[in-house]
Amino acid sequence: MHGKIVGFEAFDIRFPTSQQLDGSDAVHADPDYSAAYVVLRTEAGDEGHGFCFTLGRGNEIEVAAIEALGRMVAGLDIGDIVRDSRGFYRLLTQDSQMRWLGPEKGVVHMAAAAVINAVWDMVSKLAGKPLWKYLADLPPQELAAMADFQYLSDALTEDEAVEMLRRAEGGKADRESWLLEHGIPAYATSPGWLGYSDEKLVRLCGEAVDDGYNLIKLKVGGSVADDQRRLALARDAVGPDTRIAIDANQKWDVGEAIDWMAALAHHAPYWIEEPTSPDDVLGHAAIRRAVAPVRVATGEAVQNRVMFKQFLQADAIDIMQIDATRAGGVNENIANLLLAAKFGVPVVPHAGGVGLCEVVQHLAMVDLVAIAGDIGERSIEYVDHLHEHFVDPVRVVDGSYRAPRRPGFSSEIRPGSIEEYRYPTGSAWRRLAGGAVDQA
Amino acid sequence: MHGKIVGFEAFDIRFPTSQQLDGSDAVHADPDYSAAYVVLRTEAGDEGHGFCFTLGRGNEIEVAAIEALGRMVAGLDIGDIVRDSRGFYRLLTQDSQMRWLGPEKGVVHMAAAAVINAVWDMVSKLAGKPLWKYLADLPPQELAAMADFQYLSDALTEDEAVEMLRRAEGGKADRESWLLEHGIPAYATSPGWLGYSDEKLVRLCGEAVDDGYNLIKLKVGGSVADDQRRLALARDAVGPDTRIAIDANQKWDVGEAIDWMAALAHHAPYWIEEPTSPDDVLGHAAIRRAVAPVRVATGEAVQNRVMFKQFLQADAIDIMQIDATRAGGVNENIANLLLAAKFGVPVVPHAGGVGLCEVVQHLAMVDLVAIAGDIGERSIEYVDHLHEHFVDPVRVVDGSYRAPRRPGFSSEIRPGSIEEYRYPTGSAWRRLAGGAVDQA
Repeated sequence: MHGKIVGFEAFDIRFPTSQQLDGSDAVHADPDYSAAYVVLRTEAGDEGHGFCFTLGRGNEIEVAAIEALGRMVAGLDIGDIVRDSRGFYRLLTQDSQMRWLGPEKGVVHMAAAAVINAVWDMVSKLAGKPLWKYLADLPPQELAAMADFQYLSDALTEDEAVEMLRRAEGGKADRESWLLEHGIPAYATSPGWLGYSDEKLVRLCGEAVDDGYNLIKLKVGGSVADDQRRLALARDAVGPDTRIAIDANQKWDVGEAIDWMAALAHHAPYWIEEPTSPDDVLGHAAIRRAVAPVRVATGEAVQNRVMFKQFLQADAIDIMQIDATRAGGVNENIANLLLAAKFGVPVVPHAGGVGLCEVVQHLAMVDLVAIAGDIGERSIEYVDHLHEHFVDPVRVVDGSYRAPRRPGFSSEIRPGSIEEYRYPTGSAWRRLAGGAVDQA
Repeated sequence: MHGKIVGFEAFDIRFPTSQQLDGSDAVHADPDYSAAYVVLRTEAGDEGHGFCFTLGRGNEIEVAAIEALGRMVAGLDIGDIVRDSRGFYRLLTQDSQMRWLGPEKGVVHMAAAAVINAVWDMVSKLAGKPLWKYLADLPPQELAAMADFQYLSDALTEDEAVEMLRRAEGGKADRESWLLEHGIPAYATSPGWLGYSDEKLVRLCGEAVDDGYNLIKLKVGGSVADDQRRLALARDAVGPDTRIAIDANQKWDVGEAIDWMAALAHHAPYWIEEPTSPDDVLGHAAIRRAVAPVRVATGEAVQNRVMFKQFLQADAIDIMQIDATRAGGVNENIANLLLAAKFGVPVVPHAGGVGLCEVVQHLAMVDLVAIAGDIGERSIEYVDHLHEHFVDPVRVVDGSYRAPRRPGFSSEIRPGSIEEYRYPTGSAWRRLAGGAVDQA
């Protein structure tokens, strides 16, 4: 595989989702789901598409960061990147001047994810495989070589990772067949946004059960009384057999989380997600000890593998929720998946937003086939928003994500959608600016 | 106090320090010390100056973030900000859309620090006091009210903080007199940059002792043999009574740090700084247990108060090194100082870079006078670079920082320096672009 990357283009794409309170939770009241989007091009005309997800304001800062990193990628050969993708990860995350802005966290790390994800979209398209299959087919040493084990060796060394991947080769073909037949269960977050009325909550809960979901999630953290009422309504709507997880989106202090969960305990939530700051490993560990047997889940705002390592070392989480564009893209998520497998904690990816379902499914699928090697409690978050803007949208059938068949990372946004939702010049935004709230 | 903030201006200021390898360490080989700089203006013409420090590339990303936050500040009244400065901190750090880019970390958090620091420069100028004195004169409840205790209450509540500050009022006047007479000890990092020759190292070590410093710091982590040789040379140069701290700048994995420190143990370094990832609380705790009695220090890359809380809870550090522009400015550093005081860990601020000495001295001084209330092992890093560009440069006399007397936060860069070092249009950069490496 070869091809010199000769240029890139970055786009500020925003969808005016705040108009409907889609995506509203205890902390994020009015998101405009957005993508800082990048297209890499080779001299042969091959393309790779990647993005990081944001909530609207500040998306232009991510675009500025993508432009800084894009300049480092222009001129590289895609074959050289594949042969030393750890080196490529470090090029983008360890630049001796830019690393000060992270290191490996926040705006610059999410921008690195966008560029790295674009590279893997290009690579898997050139290989003629969907990314999950491309990764699952790699020999153990090559898959492990994508991860950066710096700062991980007290929990997981590269040799251990290769050995784990070798063991997972047993049964790999069977798991791939199983995946192609069954897919990976989805769980439904769409019913439970905090800004929705009780009537809408109940209706959407019923629809989720009808659509084959056996796990739904409600946002909590507004008030205890509201949470109790909404949990009771949801339970009535879904019946006794559907699990209900809850998500506080970082709303509480440690003691507050413990007290609040005590007040909700009789509703037996399946997990409590983001009970406190995503930076608070020790806080999550304290909460987990207090709220057991309710599971503790986190990850969508966990900045990198060093934090995930500690959540696992401290026994702070039962469920690890990687995000495809928060940590450093495919490469760092391979490290995250390896860590989770080492500690025996299931990965249930965060999704929703713009295109997060499309891309993160590939990571859950390589996890199932080639890394964890077990379906267990695994599922993938699903939110039914904005899929129509993607060239290869997710297919969720009977409550399960179906494995993508098309080459690439499913990360490509339709050209017409890019034009319509470019901020602030796209036609959708010009219409809003003109006072006509008209979301196509 | 009142005055409506009617506008702001952001500047990308870079100094071509990489030409001389000033500031070179095991991880940052060639920094161009830079400031993403902001000037706030009221309708009456009052100004507040703030900045965050970066290493060069990517400074434009910080400027983009400052512009996004500056738009939130325009229109506010400085009196309202002072009356609810915690609310102002949250306005800048908890915007429901922009917080996704952190939360409270990385590019957006450093930009918030720049804007917040500019506000406190303006406030203390309007009050006619240097910032350290303005803060030290606040009643305990008002000083505590600057800090955001969200996510801290399992370690420190606001009531406890007020009580601590009340206790520290005893002896405050005496400590202020002592500060005005003696200043706060500086320690010298200038001798020990990794890119300097042995000859330069020895010469600068001797000069540091002659200048009255009793603590110097060397960068380590290139190779064990080099570190051993440089430590021996430095010890010969400074004699037996000067303490030598060492700084690995995040170079090592946990096990590697422990092994490397074992190889340097006979040099009895005073502390080991940043032995591993600044995100690795548990790793620092493991290293601290292994290298005792050598102290463990960190903080210049610690993103926020939630991380500092955990470093303290986990007994992971002996020395806490706050940075004035990494965490969320004056407000979050008040929280950090309160946490350190609660846990009895001395704060020895990080400085150097562009203007970090100028601003962080104010925080060390309010810590001494009104928070920790004890000089103990406290000192402030000192690097003799770039002070000539500041309107109110630090005064280090006989190895001690002298308390600033001039109103404000000492954060204002001279207009001529702004023009000369604006990137890429300033005359210094135009000269470099023209091939004439001519640093004034």
